[in-house]
Amino acid sequence: MTMQTGLIFHPYMKPGRTAKQTFEWGVQSSIACDKAGFGTMMISEHASQIWENIPNPELIMAAAALHTENIMFAPMAHILPHQHPTKLAVMVGWLSQILEGRYFLGIGAGAYPQASYMHGIKDAEPQMLGDMVRESLYIMEKVWAREPFYFEGKYWDAGFPEEAEAVTEEDEQHKLADFSPWNGAFPEIAVTGFSTNSPSMRLAGEKNFKPVSIYSGLDALKRHWEIYSEANTKAGFTPDRSRHAVSHTIFCADTDAEAKREVMEGPIGYCFNRYLIPIWKRFGMMDGFAKDHGIDPNDADLEFLVDKVFIVGSPDTVVDKLNVLFEQCGGWGTLQIESHDYYDDPTPWFHSLELVAKEVAPRVKLPEGKTAELA
Amino acid sequence: MTMQTGLIFHPYMKPGRTAKQTFEWGVQSSIACDKAGFGTMMISEHASQIWENIPNPELIMAAAALHTENIMFAPMAHILPHQHPTKLAVMVGWLSQILEGRYFLGIGAGAYPQASYMHGIKDAEPQMLGDMVRESLYIMEKVWAREPFYFEGKYWDAGFPEEAEAVTEEDEQHKLADFSPWNGAFPEIAVTGFSTNSPSMRLAGEKNFKPVSIYSGLDALKRHWEIYSEANTKAGFTPDRSRHAVSHTIFCADTDAEAKREVMEGPIGYCFNRYLIPIWKRFGMMDGFAKDHGIDPNDADLEFLVDKVFIVGSPDTVVDKLNVLFEQCGGWGTLQIESHDYYDDPTPWFHSLELVAKEVAPRVKLPEGKTAELA
Repeated sequence: MTMQTGLIFHPYMKPGRTAKQTFEWGVQSSIACDKAGFGTMMISEHASQIWENIPNPELIMAAAALHTENIMFAPMAHILPHQHPTKLAVMVGWLSQILEGRYFLGIGAGAYPQASYMHGIKDAEPQMLGDMVRESLYIMEKVWAREPFYFEGKYWDAGFPEEAEAVTEEDEQHKLADFSPWNGAFPEIAVTGFSTNSPSMRLAGEKNFKPVSIYSGLDALKRHWEIYSEANTKAGFTPDRSRHAVSHTIFCADTDAEAKREVMEGPIGYCFNRYLIPIWKRFGMMDGFAKDHGIDPNDADLEFLVDKVFIVGSPDTVVDKLNVLFEQCGGWGTLQIESHDYYDDPTPWFHSLELVAKEVAPRVKLPEGKTAELA
Repeated sequence: MTMQTGLIFHPYMKPGRTAKQTFEWGVQSSIACDKAGFGTMMISEHASQIWENIPNPELIMAAAALHTENIMFAPMAHILPHQHPTKLAVMVGWLSQILEGRYFLGIGAGAYPQASYMHGIKDAEPQMLGDMVRESLYIMEKVWAREPFYFEGKYWDAGFPEEAEAVTEEDEQHKLADFSPWNGAFPEIAVTGFSTNSPSMRLAGEKNFKPVSIYSGLDALKRHWEIYSEANTKAGFTPDRSRHAVSHTIFCADTDAEAKREVMEGPIGYCFNRYLIPIWKRFGMMDGFAKDHGIDPNDADLEFLVDKVFIVGSPDTVVDKLNVLFEQCGGWGTLQIESHDYYDDPTPWFHSLELVAKEVAPRVKLPEGKTAELA
């Protein structure tokens, strides 16, 4: 099968953008991606980050619902410890119905201590956050199943009432509204992994969730698939690379020179110089890329990333770079393109997205025999 | 001043409507009301009711945000005991920014025991629900204020982190995103009252919230204003009738006969016969209307409601009926028209909404000296 194309929308908006601009950019991006043939749009949820300024991805999905036809949406991710599981389960169910199934559910524990603190989690330890995620999922699945229960949990209480059978037509008018997900099925659940020995990838494998790798270098990407497929096999499933999504920085223009210039001088370069390169260096997130190319992480700059790490160039160049990467790591199902702030002039960005979906992706194939391989 | 026009969207959709139809009807209604000059659209939040099948009013507001220009939106109401206050405060702030201030916030404790049960409130006592509402509001205001705090409450923990001053340009990139409401001001808060001696109206007066009466007869409506204005005065405010919104069933057509026929035979009559008349009788909600007209509540039927209670007729008739009501009760600021399910053929409904906004409302005035009267 050929590679699928998706967008991941954090959305890396320049500080100073208004909420309306950010929101509008999300809706415009979803429409452009839907038209270009993208399969999925993932939208982040952050309550505290100035560059990642969407606290409620569901609002953008709702605004896009009636203006898109084929693209699937996923919060990536709803932070489960921050909200009541019933409230979230009902919203997820209703939104997946509104989207008539064009929906899957990214879940997370929350990576930013300030956001945890705001939601009453003072000392956010991974163990406790993981516990909260498990309890929340347990409750959400119960609510979606629509069978009577009452559960007094460590973090939340929740229930589903017993419904008397409707005998008369009047009874019918008082039945519970059905906010279970589209067709009554549970939505596919997805989790993201970043670090080399990502515990999220192990969880994804065990639970047969969809694995989403935030690209952080070749070694980590290979390890992600190993960890996932090992856990997935052990749990009795058959790992399928076509479910694996990998987010990465991609820019495509008509020529290599144009693509490089646009990334160096445009919104992507601006965001990396101001925000991402400094934090990647500060938190060791540059190490994987530096190691792949034998340099000191401190020497990594924007041009290094553009030339060696990002996938930047004409359609032919981007196809070549992706095929090399696919050979090295075994390939993946969906390329989740990292979105950037082209709100002021979307033309080069939407052109890039269209080139990737229409001219690049059909020429990038999962290596034979890799769709259901074991680690 | 003249009466303002608004919509209240519960939305009384026929059971069997899909989520997408309900959602689409909400967005279409908001656009039609905005064009017709409506001032406000209130949208209910219910997790359990088949005829009142919107669990997340914010999704409809988001979908309408970029397609409307002047109309203000309000959830009526967000059920505070069902959700984490920080999560809600951040969403409310962000949405009010997206709407650039076209937003106010209806709050409620939750009237349906099944919905409370789902959210982990097993025996929903008014006292406890009221406590939860107060604690939630306390936290939300703290989060909106963006000053450091940590609060361990009876129902929720929450906080706002202390932010180090940004010294360098790099620090600037890591400041907390600002999800306080539009312009940093708290949104206007509104509460609904139904019963004759409504405790919500007392709360609204004390806190200077916007009072919204669900029309349940003349006595109750007069009492609502008395209770509200007494409490409002006592708390040191000046009660202003222009802030009072009253929801009511209204239908306007070119002639009286056409209006009556449409209500009797169309979606409004269908909803009342199947759903509202039976529950109004069962829970004593017909008593006020019956008393106003000296009949036994059990004898009240659709035609009684259409002739004596609803405001149905040509523009002239509707003006007359509203002016009589204004004389009797003292008037109000906004007529919040109860929405019904005209999804299959919106034409007569949108025509009615347009007539009320353009031909009726400008001819209905608050009696002189009533805008800031005391009870």
